[in-house]
Amino acid sequence: MNVIDLNSDLGESFGAWTMGNDSDVLRYVSSANVACGFHAGDPQVMIATARAAAKAGVAVGAHPGHSDLVGFGRRQMALSADEAYAITLYQIGAMSAVCRAQGLGLQHVKPHGALYNQAAKDTALAEAIAQAVRDGGDLILLGLANSAFERAAAKTGIPFAAEAFADRAYRADGTLLPRGEAGAVIHDVTLAVERTVLMATEGVVIAADGSSVRLSPHSICLHGDTTEAVAMAREIRKGLEAAGVAVRPLKEVLS
Amino acid sequence: MNVIDLNSDLGESFGAWTMGNDSDVLRYVSSANVACGFHAGDPQVMIATARAAAKAGVAVGAHPGHSDLVGFGRRQMALSADEAYAITLYQIGAMSAVCRAQGLGLQHVKPHGALYNQAAKDTALAEAIAQAVRDGGDLILLGLANSAFERAAAKTGIPFAAEAFADRAYRADGTLLPRGEAGAVIHDVTLAVERTVLMATEGVVIAADGSSVRLSPHSICLHGDTTEAVAMAREIRKGLEAAGVAVRPLKEVLS
Amino acid sequence: MNVIDLNSDLGESFGAWTMGNDSDVLRYVSSANVACGFHAGDPQVMIATARAAAKAGVAVGAHPGHSDLVGFGRRQMALSADEAYAITLYQIGAMSAVCRAQGLGLQHVKPHGALYNQAAKDTALAEAIAQAVRDGGDLILLGLANSAFERAAAKTGIPFAAEAFADRAYRADGTLLPRGEAGAVIHDVTLAVERTVLMATEGVVIAADGSSVRLSPHSICLHGDTTEAVAMAREIRKGLEAAGVAVRPLKEVLS
Amino acid sequence: MNVIDLNSDLGESFGAWTMGNDSDVLRYVSSANVACGFHAGDPQVMIATARAAAKAGVAVGAHPGHSDLVGFGRRQMALSADEAYAITLYQIGAMSAVCRAQGLGLQHVKPHGALYNQAAKDTALAEAIAQAVRDGGDLILLGLANSAFERAAAKTGIPFAAEAFADRAYRADGTLLPRGEAGAVIHDVTLAVERTVLMATEGVVIAADGSSVRLSPHSICLHGDTTEAVAMAREIRKGLEAAGVAVRPLKEVLS
Repeated sequence: MNVIDLNSDLGESFGAWTMGNDSDVLRYVSSANVACGFHAGDPQVMIATARAAAKAGVAVGAHPGHSDLVGFGRRQMALSADEAYAITLYQIGAMSAVCRAQGLGLQHVKPHGALYNQAAKDTALAEAIAQAVRDGGDLILLGLANSAFERAAAKTGIPFAAEAFADRAYRADGTLLPRGEAGAVIHDVTLAVERTVLMATEGVVIAADGSSVRLSPHSICLHGDTTEAVAMAREIRKGLEAAGVAVRPLKEVLS
Repeated sequence: MNVIDLNSDLGESFGAWTMGNDSDVLRYVSSANVACGFHAGDPQVMIATARAAAKAGVAVGAHPGHSDLVGFGRRQMALSADEAYAITLYQIGAMSAVCRAQGLGLQHVKPHGALYNQAAKDTALAEAIAQAVRDGGDLILLGLANSAFERAAAKTGIPFAAEAFADRAYRADGTLLPRGEAGAVIHDVTLAVERTVLMATEGVVIAADGSSVRLSPHSICLHGDTTEAVAMAREIRKGLEAAGVAVRPLKEVLS
Repeated sequence: MNVIDLNSDLGESFGAWTMGNDSDVLRYVSSANVACGFHAGDPQVMIATARAAAKAGVAVGAHPGHSDLVGFGRRQMALSADEAYAITLYQIGAMSAVCRAQGLGLQHVKPHGALYNQAAKDTALAEAIAQAVRDGGDLILLGLANSAFERAAAKTGIPFAAEAFADRAYRADGTLLPRGEAGAVIHDVTLAVERTVLMATEGVVIAADGSSVRLSPHSICLHGDTTEAVAMAREIRKGLEAAGVAVRPLKEVLS
Repeated sequence: MNVIDLNSDLGESFGAWTMGNDSDVLRYVSSANVACGFHAGDPQVMIATARAAAKAGVAVGAHPGHSDLVGFGRRQMALSADEAYAITLYQIGAMSAVCRAQGLGLQHVKPHGALYNQAAKDTALAEAIAQAVRDGGDLILLGLANSAFERAAAKTGIPFAAEAFADRAYRADGTLLPRGEAGAVIHDVTLAVERTVLMATEGVVIAADGSSVRLSPHSICLHGDTTEAVAMAREIRKGLEAAGVAVRPLKEVLS
């Protein structure tokens, strides 16, 4: 039986500011990447998010980011491997304690924004993050398929889960078409559902040039920042289940 | 055999700024309260401090404080019980992961500065902190003797360790003479050593009015911020050992 | 001719987080209190807000707050007078430069949240803030009528503008009925409009006990955080103009 | 008569943490670059530093940096031109108000650390900073000679002052030998003094390959972070005066 995880970034509110549609998104995903207070989230938001995830039966992961609240962790920062290790370990620890207090185990770690993008291409950063994941507990590293993350996880001896995107176009070599290029983002819900089902059932994505590319992600990344994004999440979940694909948390997908 | 713990605040450097004499202090204490990044410390400083403590055979505790870096956590802040719980749990988690990565268990939690002073008198804050200590792991709450901390720990069902001060005068009711008053701080090293030995061996402190007060602390709080403070720490350790008092980490004192 | 200012807090978005309905509120107020980055706002938000205010013909004031982003500046913090002076001067300066760059003069300073509430009752804090207002330029201090602000402004020799609230009940002594008490907040738009017009035309407010209280504010504080609040702002502006009251920026009301 | 400015970074303490030897350095420099709270400094430190500079007859400049306290503003961050403009303008404003309160005019702006290094090579960032300097008042931009700063200042129509380094080796094209390379940093005080005098009197520096390079800086950057650095600052000042070079604040050098 085909099985896949659906993940989304949650807990991105901060103090008096709210962001996202967490209660809606929790109905469709199986794993939540919860912000840990460096780029978004705060201790109370983390607790509320873990509690809501527990109630919804959604597995929780840490979503560590750069120490850049005003930039939402989206700005590249030059970071030594030691700094990357330290901030990742710290944020994993904070999230772990929050999960423990809710009777949950922390399932995975998915770096956020610029930290994700930098480490996906930078071996030293990816290895530092993988070491923090290893030292932070019995956790899965969730990251871009075929990236430095995957190699760092293998080298460090930790489980790795590859994610793909329902709403992004791919090139023939399996990499993402950059956001700037025409057609890079897929807005057609039906098409996004079809592509996701194809990845989950056949392990294939149709690239921008029409070729078939092998892509068997463990998890699909969904967005929840707009009403349209939530609608797409709902349809993808529906489409997968209609196609006989079970949506399960990462740890079950990997096991 | 008499046994007591010596604790001190460590890891209070931040980024490019250094503070304290950690390597000296680690030679004399048995438990370190390590700042967790809210009022002092940062992820790399926490790691370096835990590593140094492990090497020195000193047990590590979390030293959570207000989210007030510029005020060093010394300014009173109005905080709900939920906020106090959340920031304490978060900081405990971060410190736990850092300890775990160094092969250490986290031993205890001692709130810092204004958070300590506020909670020592405020039942709701003390209980929130005690709950965070309970939810954060198998930890000891270290706080002021006869304070709201002690009652909150009892109510929450977590182990409590009482601390006393070698360099502070006490009133006949066992409370501290406030810093503003004459003679509140003891600068004479010989006297501080004598008082500490008396607490450790007889469970007694001589109050400002000359009366004997029962005070059997599990731990003595030492300072390390000046050369004089380090000298006092050294002499207190020496004096205790000369008097046949074993200096041991909190968990051994409590067991 | 009767004249009054309408003020509201604006520019409370931060980084990726938005807050408030600034473009709507700017249609009804004559003075904007713009957050300065300590409790809300950031340098880019401040610039965008000053630009929008300039375009709308609304005068700009600095809205300094505690250094407490996660608490939105609403949590009381123990602050020395020197600290209050320094953070107020700093925030005034930042806002002044932003206004200057938009070809605007900074009109006034209104402290935010807990800083406002603390200083309204604390002579030392109020005087520190008044001194920062004096040292920061040729500015008006906007604050609670009959408070420490008014006395501090007089002592410091700076212009003071008193504000009142359209949607709050008053006691017979001219102070606000605390939020916790029944009837403290007025939700009936028609009633709020009537009360505002009475203050602007007769210099009187009807207290909770039915008595008439003299209250001649220079400015009425409006809220913009909800759709209902914006609707009330619109009706108050309409009601004032229908009653022949001119709505003008503070500096014109005071001149 | 030959005249030159000596500048140094000051006011880099933060909260409870001290850094640098400001009172010593103020005896030797003519212009101080004062940290503005983003990478170092805080409102109270800024005030104390401006007051000390005023007393010492040293001109004050703003030293804006990245919003990166833990990294001391030394880590490169991807920043849009709008962000660079906004954070520079904000910090200039804060520093201006602090100077105004001390009866001083703000003299110049010198970006700090990674912001300096990034903008020295990046036209868009340098122009954004130059525009903030223009919009922030009647100020001088102090930066690396022959860099994007110089071109941006010219384009924006603001005065530019070029700085050089007493303790750094230069290449034949007038650029700095990178820190990693052998001989990049000059530790010999006598040599550093000779080189500074040569720059101030002949407008020449001897490059690493022995060739003479034209270099007529308006200001020499001195360090004050170590006892050795302060000693070098003292000797350079002495050497310049012995050679008949007047040490004067930037605005006098440029006039």
